Amino acid sequence: MFREEITLEGHIIDSNVLAQVLDDIIALDGDFKIIEINVGQGRNDRSHARIQVTAETRPELDQILAQLGKHGALVHSPQDAQIVAADIDGAFPEAFYATTNQQTFVRSRGQWVEVQNQEMDCGILQGADGGFRCVPVAHVLRGDRIVCGHAGVKVIPYQRDRMRGLFEFMASEISTEKPKNAIIKQCARLMWHCKREGKRLLLVGGPAIVHTGSTAHVVRLIERGYVHVLFGGNAIAVHDIENAIFGTSLGVYTEKATLADAGHENHLRAINSVRRAGSIASAVESGLISSGIMHACVRHHVEFVLAGSIRDDGPLPDVITDMLVAQDSLRASLKDVGFALMVATGLHSIATGNVLPAWVPAVCVDINPSVLTKLGDRGSFQTIGLVTDVEPFFRELVHEIELLEGGQDATKESKAV
Amino acid sequence: MFREEITLEGHIIDSNVLAQVLDDIIALDGDFKIIEINVGQGRNDRSHARIQVTAETRPELDQILAQLGKHGALVHSPQDAQIVAADIDGAFPEAFYATTNQQTFVRSRGQWVEVQNQEMDCGILQGADGGFRCVPVAHVLRGDRIVCGHAGVKVIPYQRDRMRGLFEFMASEISTEKPKNAIIKQCARLMWHCKREGKRLLLVGGPAIVHTGSTAHVVRLIERGYVHVLFGGNAIAVHDIENAIFGTSLGVYTEKATLADAGHENHLRAINSVRRAGSIASAVESGLISSGIMHACVRHHVEFVLAGSIRDDGPLPDVITDMLVAQDSLRASLKDVGFALMVATGLHSIATGNVLPAWVPAVCVDINPSVLTKLGDRGSFQTIGLVTDVEPFFRELVHEIELLEGGQDATKESKAV
Amino acid sequence: MFREEITLEGHIIDSNVLAQVLDDIIALDGDFKIIEINVGQGRNDRSHARIQVTAETRPELDQILAQLGKHGALVHSPQDAQIVAADIDGAFPEAFYATTNQQTFVRSRGQWVEVQNQEMDCGILQGADGGFRCVPVAHVLRGDRIVCGHAGVKVIPYQRDRMRGLFEFMASEISTEKPKNAIIKQCARLMWHCKREGKRLLLVGGPAIVHTGSTAHVVRLIERGYVHVLFGGNAIAVHDIENAIFGTSLGVYTEKATLADAGHENHLRAINSVRRAGSIASAVESGLISSGIMHACVRHHVEFVLAGSIRDDGPLPDVITDMLVAQDSLRASLKDVGFALMVATGLHSIATGNVLPAWVPAVCVDINPSVLTKLGDRGSFQTIGLVTDVEPFFRELVHEIELLEGGQDATKESKAV
Amino acid sequence: MFREEITLEGHIIDSNVLAQVLDDIIALDGDFKIIEINVGQGRNDRSHARIQVTAETRPELDQILAQLGKHGALVHSPQDAQIVAADIDGAFPEAFYATTNQQTFVRSRGQWVEVQNQEMDCGILQGADGGFRCVPVAHVLRGDRIVCGHAGVKVIPYQRDRMRGLFEFMASEISTEKPKNAIIKQCARLMWHCKREGKRLLLVGGPAIVHTGSTAHVVRLIERGYVHVLFGGNAIAVHDIENAIFGTSLGVYTEKATLADAGHENHLRAINSVRRAGSIASAVESGLISSGIMHACVRHHVEFVLAGSIRDDGPLPDVITDMLVAQDSLRASLKDVGFALMVATGLHSIATGNVLPAWVPAVCVDINPSVLTKLGDRGSFQTIGLVTDVEPFFRELVHEIELLEGGQDATKESKAV
Repeated sequence: MFREEITLEGHIIDSNVLAQVLDDIIALDGDFKIIEINVGQGRNDRSHARIQVTAETRPELDQILAQLGKHGALVHSPQDAQIVAADIDGAFPEAFYATTNQQTFVRSRGQWVEVQNQEMDCGILQGADGGFRCVPVAHVLRGDRIVCGHAGVKVIPYQRDRMRGLFEFMASEISTEKPKNAIIKQCARLMWHCKREGKRLLLVGGPAIVHTGSTAHVVRLIERGYVHVLFGGNAIAVHDIENAIFGTSLGVYTEKATLADAGHENHLRAINSVRRAGSIASAVESGLISSGIMHACVRHHVEFVLAGSIRDDGPLPDVITDMLVAQDSLRASLKDVGFALMVATGLHSIATGNVLPAWVPAVCVDINPSVLTKLGDRGSFQTIGLVTDVEPFFRELVHEIELLEGGQDATKESKAV
Repeated sequence: MFREEITLEGHIIDSNVLAQVLDDIIALDGDFKIIEINVGQGRNDRSHARIQVTAETRPELDQILAQLGKHGALVHSPQDAQIVAADIDGAFPEAFYATTNQQTFVRSRGQWVEVQNQEMDCGILQGADGGFRCVPVAHVLRGDRIVCGHAGVKVIPYQRDRMRGLFEFMASEISTEKPKNAIIKQCARLMWHCKREGKRLLLVGGPAIVHTGSTAHVVRLIERGYVHVLFGGNAIAVHDIENAIFGTSLGVYTEKATLADAGHENHLRAINSVRRAGSIASAVESGLISSGIMHACVRHHVEFVLAGSIRDDGPLPDVITDMLVAQDSLRASLKDVGFALMVATGLHSIATGNVLPAWVPAVCVDINPSVLTKLGDRGSFQTIGLVTDVEPFFRELVHEIELLEGGQDATKESKAV
Repeated sequence: MFREEITLEGHIIDSNVLAQVLDDIIALDGDFKIIEINVGQGRNDRSHARIQVTAETRPELDQILAQLGKHGALVHSPQDAQIVAADIDGAFPEAFYATTNQQTFVRSRGQWVEVQNQEMDCGILQGADGGFRCVPVAHVLRGDRIVCGHAGVKVIPYQRDRMRGLFEFMASEISTEKPKNAIIKQCARLMWHCKREGKRLLLVGGPAIVHTGSTAHVVRLIERGYVHVLFGGNAIAVHDIENAIFGTSLGVYTEKATLADAGHENHLRAINSVRRAGSIASAVESGLISSGIMHACVRHHVEFVLAGSIRDDGPLPDVITDMLVAQDSLRASLKDVGFALMVATGLHSIATGNVLPAWVPAVCVDINPSVLTKLGDRGSFQTIGLVTDVEPFFRELVHEIELLEGGQDATKESKAV
Repeated sequence: MFREEITLEGHIIDSNVLAQVLDDIIALDGDFKIIEINVGQGRNDRSHARIQVTAETRPELDQILAQLGKHGALVHSPQDAQIVAADIDGAFPEAFYATTNQQTFVRSRGQWVEVQNQEMDCGILQGADGGFRCVPVAHVLRGDRIVCGHAGVKVIPYQRDRMRGLFEFMASEISTEKPKNAIIKQCARLMWHCKREGKRLLLVGGPAIVHTGSTAHVVRLIERGYVHVLFGGNAIAVHDIENAIFGTSLGVYTEKATLADAGHENHLRAINSVRRAGSIASAVESGLISSGIMHACVRHHVEFVLAGSIRDDGPLPDVITDMLVAQDSLRASLKDVGFALMVATGLHSIATGNVLPAWVPAVCVDINPSVLTKLGDRGSFQTIGLVTDVEPFFRELVHEIELLEGGQDATKESKAV
């Protein structure tokens, strides 16, 4: 039998960490003995536990300890992390440490150093300056120093109660039968705070934003400074521009909900015209595009990242057709983003969840609950899922934000009216 | 080979009736020869066609003619309908004619007489006065005169273009990706017209109306006179009353979207209190219920039909627990109903579709497209399906109706503000 | 400040009870101090905690204690439960204790007595013999002795790990993207065990069982003795009989998936014929119904409870049209039921969840995830939700059960083949 | 008033073309007068109609004629198509003709010439040899000769009855409540015929194929020669290879449906290992991948096109990261494809629908009806939608195909067993 003693600290009972640790030990065929437990006597006190973990083989014990490391369990005799040089371009050494989206520290020369650019499903690279950062597999160059194994890596899980301060109802399952306005109100408050704190806001959107007639609301959000980055595909931009030029989205008049004659051609004509103009910005300049979301982005200097996809028509000249380039572009745009609003696009929401650290709150809105279920299955647990219709969501969101702004500066508001 | 000549009249090409008739003949293994066709030369002219139908056996030919009768095809030598006396209570003679929800005429003494109380899945009973009306199987009494066979029965299908005048987008499939506001606007206009014409409006609703926080909007509709009949189950009334008394719906605070402590008990306590009061009306009288939908119904004399179901808790004292009684109560309440709005309840929407004639327009709203698909599968084809969230639907509907009322009487509107 | 000391015992950390208790105290604006905690040192040891709970007012403290009682927390100085006589028929005293579906004990003369007929959303009635049982509000008679308040009532929550033994994957969210066969295999094993232990099996089913062509599989389950009670509505029986007589379900040929001519009439003709026969059993006797699920039920003496609903056509003569009678019939049929399989019917699944105690395992199958979400929202937490298609589910289930039976008795199996 | 006479020929009543033409004229504010109509007297006779179309302005009339051209209406005095040289790379002239996926002819020197590489949302390019082919906008080079306007372009719509021969139930709406086996049976027959006729079969698939445990069935299809092209994304290949190496898909054991410890890392480790091997083929060669779908593809020389997406991890070395390259790769792989089976991937199904001509039958399978609704909204009308679970679909499909093969060659079948 092999043994190791671990320590847990913090709100380990209140935040359920102790139960999860014990669960995991048993699930991995280990056994435990609680050496000492000091439960904080009051609600603000921290608890402390020492637990002896036993397993039949050393590899089994290591696997258990690796798993417990994800709950923040500390092995008593910590070692420095093992660093191995990449032997080829574009791949990690076999034993690479695979990252989560939680805050992570690597032990180096006896010190715990925080990992930068935290992102799930990456490796950890030690830079020339000795610091650590997440690196996607495609970016690895031969000779890169990559963290291997679990020893010397510590994860501080984002604690339930911190996210709860933001969204009380967070524990709620995905359900269509809940009052949505309260959630929209909190979303508005979060966005308002985020803006006041000088952080950037990310809007991830699909074409249903345009199809459902939400354009004016999104333009309003942009004008009021609540979108700093727009991330989407060819489709949202195409249909927005189709709507700006022809008044239709996928050939349906967004005002009247009736089919335009030959309307299915409109999106292709819109693409062609913008391609002729050279870029979305030039098409705004030339007056071809005189309204809509992309127009507002250009006018208000909102950064936009349009990632191509295999189903695209065209695409628009601004669309990044290479996915590795598009991902890097998305990563770059996430700097200082403090909140992500993801609407009506499973594809781009999952892409965003992939690169967003766990502590950036996100709200994902879709009328189809299965999109939210899939997002959850893929580990983006910090996301609040909201099953509702896109257009009324935006309408109410804008309304709530304007109420908050009115409260902030009544004089300005009254002038606006 | 057996032959019969039929005649079609009306907008038979424009409304696709001719294609359907030819389709049906072929599908039923018959053959046809077009004797004469007179297509109206302009858009307002009626067409006329004589078609010879052929089949190998007489029963096959009869089956084809029966099917064509549903498209309004007239056999050239019409006979009087056959009438057979019911031999037992509660059942039709085996050969009974099964009704649709379309306008139907029965030939009696050489005259075509319109059937009253048109309703699908019934039989046709000839009353003592010689008139005809639909009768559900459970109501049949021994000796009742029941129409049998298809001869002497003529159906005038509700024509596409008449419904189209109401809803241009009607052909649209059930899709979440359409602009909803245009549809809501037309729904509002329809309700407004219906009220002005002195017809009654029916609201069919499920508890998600309360769960999603739509109570105030529905109360507003009631106060403005846009609901004459409310049809639902125990649940909508229970959760409305729970909300009026405790501020929760299924234990969730509808204002804050947070769980109430011990909130799951609230609906049962609400039921118990109303049972103690004797009825919803008494509970309103006593002040126990001082707000909400049921309160508004009592105060504004809205007829309500609450049909029990097997999953009910309680139920409330006003709930009709016997389904045959409840169905009759629903039928009685439909008199002079000119429009049906069905929201967030598959069960009651289908029940309504079962007893509503095809010419009463209906809009069915649900966030789950499968509810609308099921409704369509069950033959309620006159229903416009709208996939959207309940609360914003009602909010926008009330807004649009108030705009229409404002337009109608600007003085009144300005006073109201 | 008001104080009370409570005790928790059992697997309070492993099963997350301690965290929930502390959560609830804080959520209800109380405070706590952990007096003593003895965590079981190993995985099979029980833990023990003494906690002092504080609140500002006595009613607040009582509310907290009531809530903690649901986690099995014991107040140190337990009192006997308070019993109040009902003052009217059909309603509880205002302060009645509202039941959950968990195992419950009432303290009477210093003894903890287990409550019989455990069912959620009821009251607790003390019988003439001093024993306690759940009673629905509609059954209360004036003078009945009803438990009031939370003092002297103790709930033993069904512990996570006990259900886990049955279904390892239980924690899984409702997702369409999981391997289903493993779950079906465990469902089969559970049903097989249940039968071997002499417990009864309940099948709750909707008409989609027939629409999707699953009839033969269900008949096989019945023939092999895996259905003792069938619970559903008019629709499953109607379409099963329509299918037996005409080969169609809702007018669609279940073999060929094509529409029958005039097929929409078939269900009504089926209903009429059975009404003429007097009952389903007579129709089987007379040869009118010679195959299908209802035929198998009659032949194999499966008890069936058919509860009417407001959308019914007919109904069939065996359908119970009064909901209170139907609920009692369902309750009576649940005696000795050890497993519930609920397929393709939200309505009847929720009705079953309402009356089933928490310790009877249940599997609910639907192709629409929202049905399972609703079931969860309504507190039937012991139910495993499986998002899959009905027909292949039954096909695989029958296959797995037959494999198990083959294993049990290879001789018999080989003869059967 | 401007007038033009058009001619319609063929099964214009039976296939509803006449009604659509009249509808469109009215919808576009034109008027019509039927000059002559000759309805085929029997079911196999063709009809003929001459219609005078009137509009208030010449542009309105042209718009109507353009629209009618899509129904195959012929203007009486046909002109040659107008050809304009592209003025820049990567864009059409503004007046370009936008293609549908229907068979199209261009009039050149008085002759109707069929357009090659038919694909929707393209332009038509005249090659050096005078022939015509579809060209996506991104491929246009300055100087390319592009068809402009609607004159001289004729579309022959794929007629309803031809597809009906394949799938009788085709008109059926998307519904979960239909018998699926009949549809699967016809799908099997179609695939079997397609193979016998020497056409290639395309499988478009998402990762849910692996998640749901369908791997063995798909491998069987490949082994039996029923997949010539596999089209999907990084995900299906990654999870297939994860499953081959670790037995998990997205960290869930596909056999047991339980979560693997640290299983969320498995897919990343699989990607890394294949990247180290250089390609999927090398990883099969080296023995790293010894089972599964990709293994079977390599072993059986199935062409695979893996298109990257913005949400990819890795990606695998075989994934095409540039979308324009991936689309061309897909187009190339479609040569001689006679049937497309699209399973559990909205993204790739829509991408396939974009480039597939209307006369290639396709079946799209998803457990989520909204995927099929979206596909329909985007114009892939030739696709049969099947709402069912993936694994049982494949199981039954393989079973049906093997029955057909058994029938074809009983000797071979008996040996196989």
